[in-house]
Amino acid sequence: MKGIVKKLVKKRGAVYLRLLCTMNTSATKRLKTDGLDFKLSQLVGKENVLHILEDRICYSYDGSKQRCLPDVVVRPQSTQHVSDILRFAYEQEIPVCPRGAGSGLTGGAVPVKGGIILDFTQMNRIVEISPEDLTATVEPGVVTQTLQSEVAKHRLFYPPDPASAPFSTIGGNVAECSGGITGLKYGVTRDYILSLEVVLADGSIIHTGRKTLKSVTGYDLTRLFVGSEGTLGVFTQITVKLLPLPEKIETLLVFFATTQDAIQSASQIIFNNLLPRAMEFIDKSSIDCVKGYKQEIQIPAEVNALLLIDIDGREASVKTEASLVEEIVNKNHAIRVASAKNAQERDTLWEVRRAISPALYNIAPYKINEDICVPRGRILEILGRIAGIHKRYPSLKVASFGHIGDGNIHVNVMYDEGEQQRALAEEMIEEILRNTVEVGGTISGEHGIGNVKSAFLSLEIPPRELEIMKEMKHLLDPKGILNPGKVFC
Amino acid sequence: MKGIVKKLVKKRGAVYLRLLCTMNTSATKRLKTDGLDFKLSQLVGKENVLHILEDRICYSYDGSKQRCLPDVVVRPQSTQHVSDILRFAYEQEIPVCPRGAGSGLTGGAVPVKGGIILDFTQMNRIVEISPEDLTATVEPGVVTQTLQSEVAKHRLFYPPDPASAPFSTIGGNVAECSGGITGLKYGVTRDYILSLEVVLADGSIIHTGRKTLKSVTGYDLTRLFVGSEGTLGVFTQITVKLLPLPEKIETLLVFFATTQDAIQSASQIIFNNLLPRAMEFIDKSSIDCVKGYKQEIQIPAEVNALLLIDIDGREASVKTEASLVEEIVNKNHAIRVASAKNAQERDTLWEVRRAISPALYNIAPYKINEDICVPRGRILEILGRIAGIHKRYPSLKVASFGHIGDGNIHVNVMYDEGEQQRALAEEMIEEILRNTVEVGGTISGEHGIGNVKSAFLSLEIPPRELEIMKEMKHLLDPKGILNPGKVFC
Repeated sequence: MKGIVKKLVKKRGAVYLRLLCTMNTSATKRLKTDGLDFKLSQLVGKENVLHILEDRICYSYDGSKQRCLPDVVVRPQSTQHVSDILRFAYEQEIPVCPRGAGSGLTGGAVPVKGGIILDFTQMNRIVEISPEDLTATVEPGVVTQTLQSEVAKHRLFYPPDPASAPFSTIGGNVAECSGGITGLKYGVTRDYILSLEVVLADGSIIHTGRKTLKSVTGYDLTRLFVGSEGTLGVFTQITVKLLPLPEKIETLLVFFATTQDAIQSASQIIFNNLLPRAMEFIDKSSIDCVKGYKQEIQIPAEVNALLLIDIDGREASVKTEASLVEEIVNKNHAIRVASAKNAQERDTLWEVRRAISPALYNIAPYKINEDICVPRGRILEILGRIAGIHKRYPSLKVASFGHIGDGNIHVNVMYDEGEQQRALAEEMIEEILRNTVEVGGTISGEHGIGNVKSAFLSLEIPPRELEIMKEMKHLLDPKGILNPGKVFC
Repeated sequence: MKGIVKKLVKKRGAVYLRLLCTMNTSATKRLKTDGLDFKLSQLVGKENVLHILEDRICYSYDGSKQRCLPDVVVRPQSTQHVSDILRFAYEQEIPVCPRGAGSGLTGGAVPVKGGIILDFTQMNRIVEISPEDLTATVEPGVVTQTLQSEVAKHRLFYPPDPASAPFSTIGGNVAECSGGITGLKYGVTRDYILSLEVVLADGSIIHTGRKTLKSVTGYDLTRLFVGSEGTLGVFTQITVKLLPLPEKIETLLVFFATTQDAIQSASQIIFNNLLPRAMEFIDKSSIDCVKGYKQEIQIPAEVNALLLIDIDGREASVKTEASLVEEIVNKNHAIRVASAKNAQERDTLWEVRRAISPALYNIAPYKINEDICVPRGRILEILGRIAGIHKRYPSLKVASFGHIGDGNIHVNVMYDEGEQQRALAEEMIEEILRNTVEVGGTISGEHGIGNVKSAFLSLEIPPRELEIMKEMKHLLDPKGILNPGKVFC
């Protein structure tokens, strides 16, 4: 057993850390943690420091389902608080792990080396929405969907839309450079971040970028911090670029008899100069899960693949584009096209997509959800390769779905209880990641690396590039206190 | 005289370098340049090395009109050539200045410390256009408009559109993070760069990013290089993201009696959920220049401001949006709206905008063209401040025009022969830049810093942020051979 764990930890970073981290800090490096809560209380007030075991347990895990106990949890109320905490942590060399909603899937918010959790949920003010400037400035703890709906009141649009938007925070989104369903047409989080207030490891407060749509003064520090997973600095204020809210959205759910028809349709939609707001692919296994999970979702037996397409824009152009899409999918042997023209009907169609993730647990108690992304032209190839790999792991179940429009597929590997099964799943995932890199893809389209994938980073990033990244980390965080154990092994 | 020069060099970086750099390298640091051309010929072939004075003079200046003689010019034909040249230059500590078309306005391609010019105009292959992936991969010497028109043959669209597109290269665009007229709707160069092949100072070849629309593996090195002005690495291959080509473009040229009406219209267009492809503002002084320059351009005497608006998209939505724009400008007392529905008519309307830059030389022999960018809501304020500053410099002429849609205004200060005049112009520019930063703007929206604005960088970038940038420079180029004298003083 010990041997298996060692091998797995080596192969897949700290997914297995939960086997090593017990519910106290004995597995973490011995810290100068005596009276830590008292010292932090002096800095930010007693009411903002949580130190009893029950509280710390609540902050010991995230969406990756790993568990490591922090020594203390601090809830900063201001940039100055964050600066004071970091200055202190830097002097004392105590690890600091920033946390939004803890919904990340690669362990970004798990304090794998113990230390301080910086919980940003109380720094959740919307500082400004400026319709004239097409910008909003927010604190990192603002929930992404709250930002979306607050700007929508001004007929404005914050496009990045990760599946976690109803609960994840904008700070977490920036740290992970979240993607989501709108990536094809609107890009990802990095494309919408104009400027950042960042507290560095030593407590100094810096500002990057400007509240302007263009700026080329000096190096682009803003985007170096976007996607840095809390390892280079801690965001305390974020200015985002907004767009006008699209006038209209129409949704089409298209039923296909074969995967090939669905993927060919997706390809031809783009080839015909159409750029849907979202284009989601759902495979046979995912469909079967959903049918079992929600009886009210009616999908005929002969359906083996689905495309769920959102088209947005001016009313007139949405109508034109929806007809064009229907024409293309019909040419590609679509069995049926269901369309939704209002928010309620859209919700019904999207219910299929939303049900997949929870439904997958119906067929096996454990799953690993990968977020590979390949050049769009290689989607059929990677799905073929995954099917080939799957044949060698007949005891595992695989379901693939996701943002086919931008080549970003969520490959889910489901497995039963037991170390043997888990080890097989890990092995299969590694094969999938290797194949992804071989076809020119990336091992993470939108979930980030965290500690879950850090062992695989070198599959994609060559040694010299990795060295440069590590030197940048050292430059900004010489003592390595910011979210240690993440991104790099 | 010597005193004035010293003061000016201190104040405005090396604009005045041309007074110091003579047509030999005597003003530059003594280099190990004996037999340099011979050594380089051994590396890349004699036919790719230019060393006679006449050739070197051709490479001694760029769009900033400064002049500094390089010791030698090399025209690499491949990534390996670039790597070999840099490895040699690194060993010998010889400055290397990469150059595309030399059309930059802030001195990026001027070899202020002598050394080697790397002329990329022969590395101009379009390696791949992939309609299925919505990407193109090109060498840095490809002219931007060539890329635009080649991808247009596949009904694809490379949106960044600097005024220099007909002659500037994509490598130069990436180095400066070029903007242009489409920034409001489509963003800038950085938003379209997916991955880069970069040769580092020591000659090592690295690859950043992936040919995928999403990727969050490790830090975003790609965007650190975009806009780094040749100071961090040299690009040898660039993969860009493409969009479907818009079906239709309609152009409106709107005549106003007052600046306020024009700017209010621009503001209300955005406020009414419209995002034009381009929205250019032209002020009274620019109009007067153009009228004198091109007699055939008919603009009534009562016109004091113009808006030139491009709307693109599906035919149906362009029609709707053009009517909405007309409604808005008419409510804001537009005198007349001229519209163009085909390419030829569009060309005629755009002629006004294109004529401004050359026309400005008609009223004074010298000009400084600034590219400040402010939050859109502060445009009227900055124009007011500039008018106020101008009152204190009655002997100078000022014309403002540019990308009002994204707050990026080209403020041109024109002056007559003579050091006194030049010094006044410099003083006025400095005041304008200070005021720009005061209203939350940036001193460079799209031209970059180069050596022309390096003395002003600290107006906008605070000391700690500047220190981080310099540390990154040192990390990637410890001997400081890459485009020395640029960005930082």
